Amino acid sequence: MKTKNKINKELRLVENLIKTDFVKEKTISELYNHIFKSKGKKLRARLCLISSSRNKNINLSNRIKHAAIIELLHTATLVHDDVVDNSPTRRGIKSVNNIWTNAHGVLIGDYIYSKAFIYMVDIGNSKILKELSNATNDISQGELIQLDAINNLNITLNKLKKISYFKTGRLFEAAAKTGAILINANEAYIKNISNCAKNLGILFQIKDDLLDYSLKSEIGKPIFQDIKESKITYPFFYAYKNSSSFEKKELKKMLGNKKINQKKTSKLISDLGGIENTNNLAKQYFNKSVRFAEKIRNLKIKQEMVELAELAANREK
Amino acid sequence: MKTKNKINKELRLVENLIKTDFVKEKTISELYNHIFKSKGKKLRARLCLISSSRNKNINLSNRIKHAAIIELLHTATLVHDDVVDNSPTRRGIKSVNNIWTNAHGVLIGDYIYSKAFIYMVDIGNSKILKELSNATNDISQGELIQLDAINNLNITLNKLKKISYFKTGRLFEAAAKTGAILINANEAYIKNISNCAKNLGILFQIKDDLLDYSLKSEIGKPIFQDIKESKITYPFFYAYKNSSSFEKKELKKMLGNKKINQKKTSKLISDLGGIENTNNLAKQYFNKSVRFAEKIRNLKIKQEMVELAELAANREK
Repeated sequence: MKTKNKINKELRLVENLIKTDFVKEKTISELYNHIFKSKGKKLRARLCLISSSRNKNINLSNRIKHAAIIELLHTATLVHDDVVDNSPTRRGIKSVNNIWTNAHGVLIGDYIYSKAFIYMVDIGNSKILKELSNATNDISQGELIQLDAINNLNITLNKLKKISYFKTGRLFEAAAKTGAILINANEAYIKNISNCAKNLGILFQIKDDLLDYSLKSEIGKPIFQDIKESKITYPFFYAYKNSSSFEKKELKKMLGNKKINQKKTSKLISDLGGIENTNNLAKQYFNKSVRFAEKIRNLKIKQEMVELAELAANREK
Repeated sequence: MKTKNKINKELRLVENLIKTDFVKEKTISELYNHIFKSKGKKLRARLCLISSSRNKNINLSNRIKHAAIIELLHTATLVHDDVVDNSPTRRGIKSVNNIWTNAHGVLIGDYIYSKAFIYMVDIGNSKILKELSNATNDISQGELIQLDAINNLNITLNKLKKISYFKTGRLFEAAAKTGAILINANEAYIKNISNCAKNLGILFQIKDDLLDYSLKSEIGKPIFQDIKESKITYPFFYAYKNSSSFEKKELKKMLGNKKINQKKTSKLISDLGGIENTNNLAKQYFNKSVRFAEKIRNLKIKQEMVELAELAANREK
């Protein structure tokens, strides 16, 4: 409990650091403030802080800066994603591309990316720089590969797993890994916490794909977006795989249909095992994540990581 | 002449380094190849190579990598710019957002940015990392400020100058500066070549703004784009400033009009001194650039820089 309070306090410092970014230009500061107005879950920043909490002698301001970097990288990705997906809302508020324009979304995303790199250079650890520049590159690859998944009924499970890893698991992994690097942790710790976080990230993404098919209430963004945008994710993938040729025709009609009947779609995907199969896959990643967590020798950190995995497994928004 | 041949040879090495980037994913490599198919002027890479040519003992592969970084950063900006401006062509060939989609443009731009950061980390010079992460941030600021210039008839000359500096001069400056840092040059050399390059970049941008109003033939991209997109640049700014209230009305009608009469527009902007005033401003930056070039003690480099300034002043595409 004590650890959690400490981390929550540190998360507020991360938030403050990000919010104190000062630019004279009105439009830039308006955009920036809008983006950071809404409070995300800050799971990735939390991951950084947990990972770097092992060594008590480490400089607090570097730990905060490190967590801010990960939040900035993540936020830049979200802002660009909203342009890519033409998404009207984000974290329950209007997206940049909705209030302003796509152009603003592209450019403020670039601004936030480069801000993250400025902070990275401040910290000045070459291993962290290497991991985070590679992770950023992998994330963009994941997003690009995902574009290929649009309307692609032949997509393989392996490709879907690669997408989940690159676009989500990769930054979770990098957050934990660089947090451990920051405190000069030993190889075993770095490996265990990175792998735990990587699988946790993939689990998080799988649950995200599931939530998009959930009729249940408020997740802060529109639902049934993936199928409307012809984006094939796990629930559709499994349902399609399990379907008869008649049902395949039905599913094809739903793909890309902006006016699909949500109840009917939900029922069909569910009846065909799309939800169940995806839930089973999520369980596999939950187990993998927990297995790595259990190898961590620091009890508090182990517990925090297991709790994060449980949080991801039970997420409802 | 000998120096020029050497630099041209090195530029081919830069091109090769960029082109050998290997990704298994088909779409990514297709996008990447498309972007680097067309040969740009590579002025910024040339600037790097000139700036880092002073010290003969420096590692060639690092000089090439450094020039490649600058080209990658520049290219990422262009790809994002084409999304921002909805531009159908770039360097005489179709833009990514035209052949593929805006989403592809956003993401492959991110891919190229992060690739540049990976190379930067490889070089491992913290001063270079600092300068280039700051420059990248400034460039995005310049582009954002430029969005504010859209339809803004009250924009000041200072704001326009800031835009030219941030969006173009800044990377020219950083290219020369980091080239000099790479070879551990003395402060005076760093300062002179950076300032020379900065003003050269601003000059280059001013000429770019002028070319957009030029009826003369093939510049590899569509003309009269700025006025069609309601973007106020120097020629329009000066013309508007010099105009009577009747002419102001005419100019306002042209702004944002996708079907403007190019000849009529060109004549009005020219008659109102828009072209002449902008040319005079270009001359000021040319002179500034040359004055700093003349302070460079290495004769070959001085000459190369003066030639680049002349090239920028006389550019017709």
